[in-house]
Amino acid sequence: MEIHYPNGKKFNQNELPKNRITHTGKNESYGNRGMTLEEDLNETNKYYRDRKIAVVHKKPTPIQIVQVDYPKRSAAVIKEAYFKLASTTDYNGVYKGKYIDFEAKETRNFTSFPLKNFHQHQISHMQAVIEQGGICFVILMFTKLKEVYFLEAKHLLGFWDRMKNGGRKSITKGEIEQNGYFIPLGFQPRIDYIKILDALNLC
Amino acid sequence: MEIHYPNGKKFNQNELPKNRITHTGKNESYGNRGMTLEEDLNETNKYYRDRKIAVVHKKPTPIQIVQVDYPKRSAAVIKEAYFKLASTTDYNGVYKGKYIDFEAKETRNFTSFPLKNFHQHQISHMQAVIEQGGICFVILMFTKLKEVYFLEAKHLLGFWDRMKNGGRKSITKGEIEQNGYFIPLGFQPRIDYIKILDALNLC
Repeated sequence: MEIHYPNGKKFNQNELPKNRITHTGKNESYGNRGMTLEEDLNETNKYYRDRKIAVVHKKPTPIQIVQVDYPKRSAAVIKEAYFKLASTTDYNGVYKGKYIDFEAKETRNFTSFPLKNFHQHQISHMQAVIEQGGICFVILMFTKLKEVYFLEAKHLLGFWDRMKNGGRKSITKGEIEQNGYFIPLGFQPRIDYIKILDALNLC
Repeated sequence: MEIHYPNGKKFNQNELPKNRITHTGKNESYGNRGMTLEEDLNETNKYYRDRKIAVVHKKPTPIQIVQVDYPKRSAAVIKEAYFKLASTTDYNGVYKGKYIDFEAKETRNFTSFPLKNFHQHQISHMQAVIEQGGICFVILMFTKLKEVYFLEAKHLLGFWDRMKNGGRKSITKGEIEQNGYFIPLGFQPRIDYIKILDALNLC
């Protein structure tokens, strides 16, 4: 829980609008659309909420606060804090009474999705959600190809186990195509993952 | 979303261990148990998770990050950030496949629970969760009496509407007793709200 990001990666504050600062490396815009995967999913979730289709939110980035100043007549200012590794996935909510839970990740690769995008806490959380009867999946984006896939967490867990048993450290794109579902990028909603849940009769 | 806490309230960093710093005023220990409601619920949720009874987490406190430093060979440091008002409730998760969602609040009052403990975003979120078929409730603690109650969100929404229509700005303790359920404080788990869900056949 106390492992800190980033691993020596440089970050230029001026390159990004302030509201795009996160610790999960999702900030790189993909293609020339000028949008991040996170922004697309936030818009998608807002679309679902506004139309009462589903209630899904991104969880706030977990922060360890160390020092807070309370200036007179103005807002409290956090003066020292650190990013914490999330113990769960980033997104969860309710669709037709059922619990849904997912993580969204990007890669700039063309032919495979590195498993280092996930960490053990998230994998354990997905396993626990599945055991409790929740709907759990990942949204995987190949940013250079502008392709987004829906993959049920049970498949991700299988690939994770393969890695733990000495197998490859990524999922091939072919495996994702075979086990997952292509989500066409749309306008409204942008990443219509609920349509996949409906098609799979998961809810 | 940009309203900032606190409203002139003084906060002494040295009075509390660092991991108790939150923005929701839940830090005051109740009675002489030396535990906060938040800590009790975190322990309760850990108990449920460890025994695979339910998967429920508290959401991280939402923060607006303004400035981050990246010192060489050490963790990124957030140098300027502000507390944001939560747009949802603090706790959610899955129990028997169903979505559960709740907020927990304390009062030092003896005879009523002030509705100012909630804000409109949270009330709207509760309404949306109910409409989507999720299980939504609040856990209300009278800290001086060491009494904890479970109240379904539909009742809270009713009292909120009464206030909006010019009625009283709090729920009387009698109303909570009549519409809610007393949760005895235990050792393991400390605040066994799942037992209430079972008793009410909500999941």
